Amino acid sequence: MQSMKFCSHCGEPGSLKIPPGDNLPRFVCDGCGTIHYQNPNVVVGCVPVWQDRILLCKRAIEPRSGFWTIPAGFLENRETLEEAALRETHEEALASVNLGSLLAVVNVAHASQIHVMFRAELTDGKFGAGEETLESALYQEDDVPWPLIAFPSVRFALERFLADRRDGTEEVHVTAVERIKY
Amino acid sequence: MQSMKFCSHCGEPGSLKIPPGDNLPRFVCDGCGTIHYQNPNVVVGCVPVWQDRILLCKRAIEPRSGFWTIPAGFLENRETLEEAALRETHEEALASVNLGSLLAVVNVAHASQIHVMFRAELTDGKFGAGEETLESALYQEDDVPWPLIAFPSVRFALERFLADRRDGTEEVHVTAVERIKY
Repeated sequence: MQSMKFCSHCGEPGSLKIPPGDNLPRFVCDGCGTIHYQNPNVVVGCVPVWQDRILLCKRAIEPRSGFWTIPAGFLENRETLEEAALRETHEEALASVNLGSLLAVVNVAHASQIHVMFRAELTDGKFGAGEETLESALYQEDDVPWPLIAFPSVRFALERFLADRRDGTEEVHVTAVERIKY
Repeated sequence: MQSMKFCSHCGEPGSLKIPPGDNLPRFVCDGCGTIHYQNPNVVVGCVPVWQDRILLCKRAIEPRSGFWTIPAGFLENRETLEEAALRETHEEALASVNLGSLLAVVNVAHASQIHVMFRAELTDGKFGAGEETLESALYQEDDVPWPLIAFPSVRFALERFLADRRDGTEEVHVTAVERIKY
């Protein structure tokens, strides 16, 4: 989360103040009085499967470069969650998917993020490595590289996905994850 | 969504450009080169019930002042969805709730928002009107003022809540709503 020093509307300096009627400090312009709110971001992804295997991507960028994740990224303005999940899967894994049900909603409060993951199926079994990915691969349940999974939210989504699949159910799982020291 | 004219980091003017490796225009500072991303916001709320009645709030602020809604508002940095739902219910309805299951996730792409609603129960039946609320009231299912409900996402959440209650189920409902001309 970037700290603000100048008003993006008029260019004058500003400072943190609690506006009238509010109860949190906001960056308020000393010149034009504009209140600049900063709020959490949404990260959207999916767990793409092909037959009984799961598609994972090895990250080419920080944070957690070299670790494995599912295709996911920041929701963009004027985009739905489903559109973002499809777009990120195209960008990161060069893959087309049919989205399934909502799988997980994860609070990542320390990073001011909400992570949303869907179930998905590859449409044709094809995949590759986009610019932010070193390599992609399909993993059997027993071969998932758990110690090399990039983020707690991804571990959570994968664990719940696999448990539901064993049970023949499709639940929506809501949780919160804590900051982890890598 | 505010348009940016000046860099909030150094105060120099900037302009919309597609950064290398990106595919969407971002506000990029002509001075220091900082890329300023703008992303959707999350709105969080709940459907609070007391015995078989639903707590609704008449809005005191725009948009849709004078129309009825559920307690809801913007997720703040470093907050979980559940914390935000509790906070907003305190602020807007002066009420304490026990949160239940996730009820709805609504894409409001035209406004660059995601709305997330939980089921909830008032802890003691007490409620009131916060600063952003003209009045609060408990409504029986048959008395919900449907033509006066403020937003399509709230109508969706209320409809699904009531249908599930009739069926004795608690599903998570994911949908998208379109811009509506009021």
